[in-house]
Amino acid sequence: MNPLQELLIQLEANALWQEDLVLERNEFLNHSGTINTNLYFVESGSLRIFYLDEAEEHTIRFGYQNSFFGALDSFIKEEPSVYNIQALKKAELKVVSKDAFMNLVNSTIENQRLWQGILGEIVFQQMEREIDLLTFSPQERYRRVLKRSPQLFQEIPNKYIAAYLRMTPETFSRIKKS
Amino acid sequence: MNPLQELLIQLEANALWQEDLVLERNEFLNHSGTINTNLYFVESGSLRIFYLDEAEEHTIRFGYQNSFFGALDSFIKEEPSVYNIQALKKAELKVVSKDAFMNLVNSTIENQRLWQGILGEIVFQQMEREIDLLTFSPQERYRRVLKRSPQLFQEIPNKYIAAYLRMTPETFSRIKKS
Repeated sequence: MNPLQELLIQLEANALWQEDLVLERNEFLNHSGTINTNLYFVESGSLRIFYLDEAEEHTIRFGYQNSFFGALDSFIKEEPSVYNIQALKKAELKVVSKDAFMNLVNSTIENQRLWQGILGEIVFQQMEREIDLLTFSPQERYRRVLKRSPQLFQEIPNKYIAAYLRMTPETFSRIKKS
Repeated sequence: MNPLQELLIQLEANALWQEDLVLERNEFLNHSGTINTNLYFVESGSLRIFYLDEAEEHTIRFGYQNSFFGALDSFIKEEPSVYNIQALKKAELKVVSKDAFMNLVNSTIENQRLWQGILGEIVFQQMEREIDLLTFSPQERYRRVLKRSPQLFQEIPNKYIAAYLRMTPETFSRIKKS
């Protein structure tokens, strides 16, 4: 079992969810400039996290079924997030506050070690993402992300995966077929 | 005091350094493809961490006086690193093994919290770096990094900062003067 699943079971067992939330397709969970320190578990549906630079949208992360996500900058710093979070399909989410989550994390040494492992995994994924962004070849970017996150290709519409991979939808289709 | 300084004092007090290391200018500490799970504290000098994509060097991080660094992918996964680490100026380093460091981290709840804070800070910095890489305007990239890491502009030669900011040395000079 991975560390997030272990914490998930404890969140359930201790009834730490704050609320259930349903987002319709295209609805926003979060706009940039607002503080949102919650973590979310995706029961169904999918979402994207994007950043606006000079009116250009940069999709930088996805949330999909059975994954955790949040406005991580705000979660860490407790300051306004730079990210927008929007449902790509109707999404059912469970919400846990940072306080409730961190109390659970800090309640036992075992949980602290689980959280260390999760943070280490996030750092590693961010390093992978940095290399993705620096990789010149579209084919190589595609190959790297397919290997790392096959679920993404099942659950997310092509145009958003293409944006995440920094290529046109046409290039994405061409590489996908080849 | 920041969390790294607190752990540094404990590393000293418990004599956990494995060795001192001196690298001459341009000497490599680490080549990609090798496992290196150590952490390093820079007593003097500076280093860069870079990634090779199709023979192009991408400088992605720096180590400078009074900072910690390492081949973080290898530190986390205990597998070969994709990074190369090279001294930019003669560098004096202190070395601590992952085992010794993590034993210290896990020896008290307070230290575990310090380490949580450090990992959270690394995640946040990686998110900042991702936005840097997606930011179209060279001026804006310059402004973001100058604000976040002023020390870098004191200690690292211009041509490497320019590479880190993904601009030519000429563009870098022009923006710096303006």
